[in-house]
Amino acid sequence: MTLLVAITGWDPAPWAERFRKLMPDRRVVTLGEPYDGADIRYVASWKHPPRSLANLPHLKALLSLGAGVDHLFSDPALPDAPIVRIVDPDLTARMSEYVVLHCLLHLRQQRRYDHQQRNRQWVDDRLQPAARDMRVGILGMGELGQDAARKLALMGFQVAGWSRSSKRSTDAEMFCGADELDLFLQRTDILVALLPLTRDTRGFINATLLRKLAHDGPFGGPYLINAGRGGLQVESDILACLNDGTLLGAALDVFEQEPLPPSSPLWPHPAVTITPHNAAMSDPETIGKQVVAQIQDFESGAPLRNIVDRDRQY
Amino acid sequence: MTLLVAITGWDPAPWAERFRKLMPDRRVVTLGEPYDGADIRYVASWKHPPRSLANLPHLKALLSLGAGVDHLFSDPALPDAPIVRIVDPDLTARMSEYVVLHCLLHLRQQRRYDHQQRNRQWVDDRLQPAARDMRVGILGMGELGQDAARKLALMGFQVAGWSRSSKRSTDAEMFCGADELDLFLQRTDILVALLPLTRDTRGFINATLLRKLAHDGPFGGPYLINAGRGGLQVESDILACLNDGTLLGAALDVFEQEPLPPSSPLWPHPAVTITPHNAAMSDPETIGKQVVAQIQDFESGAPLRNIVDRDRQY
Repeated sequence: MTLLVAITGWDPAPWAERFRKLMPDRRVVTLGEPYDGADIRYVASWKHPPRSLANLPHLKALLSLGAGVDHLFSDPALPDAPIVRIVDPDLTARMSEYVVLHCLLHLRQQRRYDHQQRNRQWVDDRLQPAARDMRVGILGMGELGQDAARKLALMGFQVAGWSRSSKRSTDAEMFCGADELDLFLQRTDILVALLPLTRDTRGFINATLLRKLAHDGPFGGPYLINAGRGGLQVESDILACLNDGTLLGAALDVFEQEPLPPSSPLWPHPAVTITPHNAAMSDPETIGKQVVAQIQDFESGAPLRNIVDRDRQY
Repeated sequence: MTLLVAITGWDPAPWAERFRKLMPDRRVVTLGEPYDGADIRYVASWKHPPRSLANLPHLKALLSLGAGVDHLFSDPALPDAPIVRIVDPDLTARMSEYVVLHCLLHLRQQRRYDHQQRNRQWVDDRLQPAARDMRVGILGMGELGQDAARKLALMGFQVAGWSRSSKRSTDAEMFCGADELDLFLQRTDILVALLPLTRDTRGFINATLLRKLAHDGPFGGPYLINAGRGGLQVESDILACLNDGTLLGAALDVFEQEPLPPSSPLWPHPAVTITPHNAAMSDPETIGKQVVAQIQDFESGAPLRNIVDRDRQY
């Protein structure tokens, strides 16, 4: 009944300690420790090294420690056990903080007022649109997209959502499937990307897509917010669209390569706002408790929740 | 049945035109035009010149065209008619946009990330608190305060409100009256000022008050947002508190003197965010319609709504 903590990028030690505290009757091992693969029933993974989980014949579940599960699918020897993703209200709330902040920052032209402040300029030319004048479009209407939609709607924005499969929302006008994507883009002044990264969504935010966004909104051009995954975006296309007027600006929390290299032309771009992939940070305490609760419920006979569809990769 | 449009600071012509369009059967005059004071039944005022309304014997109502009514009380010859203030859902929504934006901007340490971006620094030291860790306190729980409280609570903030008189709220823990002000301040990490400017609230936001705010919150010190009136704040005290560590920062939309003079030390202060008194701009179309609706309803026998208490000055 051993839990294997398989992490790279983060320090595995505090995670192992947390799990040991929460499950004092189980054995918890990390990849560096000696263990018998036949004893491992559960794996808690964040970017585990490829093939490191190849020989776990009695594995019952593979639990991701972060919001996305794209890190798992790069492993060509991924075990066949059910994959469980994290759905955490705290993480969802943090993501919505980021999305609402950057929609309001754009709506309220705060960058313009920052610039005026630096020049000690008091200019108020009374062209301030209200949230009700601005159409936000959310790409990806999972848990994160739905929560952001609810909060943006309450702030007054006109909210639409796009989803690959058919979905309903009480807060957003829904567009579903490839057929309705163009209609969705054409009515969108602020595009918020919250898609999972899969083989289908890699490079989704490219020049072809960005050129379809609305140019008849309050500011005459669209704005991009990517709080999903860096692999969704083609950064050279985003830069070209910023420079030729296709895009008015962008708030990016994620990048093709992270950390964003110091040489990236995104850093000094006056219309780009960069944050270091912290839109929605996993709280280790909360996530640890959720993983343990899943394992305990499952062992009491309950089905696993939030299982990933391997075919869709989310 | 004449309406007198008595405005300074804004151009009165478009207002007069708007009223003429909405009430084609009435006479609409501005202060510069010839008119008989005995004909005036209504005044639509924004900062009318003192004593300019002294001789209107048949005045039925004095309608303010902006959110505050403090501009009226500087007139020593203010007519005795009922004073009606604007309660406009659009204006309220815009004010909440401003308040939520600046609470999130502070919570999410966006100024720090702006600074890092200028230096091409990718630093994420994982000390990001969530909204639920941050205590917002709203001074003034009228229409604006209540709406801001509702939206901040939905974003996850711990919200409290302070009101001079006893008030209830489903979204905020309420503190009422002078006796409970200190308790309110002691639990507040972000202070949002939405008080009306009256003889009692002038200079309310001073060093004595700011020193009572919480220092045990996520960032170890408080933050000030003033979206009410410049007369509420003592700017020399705010600067002193910013410089001695009493305050971590401030977002100010209003000032003792507006436009803020170029010589003000607030402009270059790194912890201050300045906007040119545009947190909640009156939409002339919406306000015009509301004023006309009030007049028409009143003439059909309905009582005037949103009458100002002259004693309290709000």
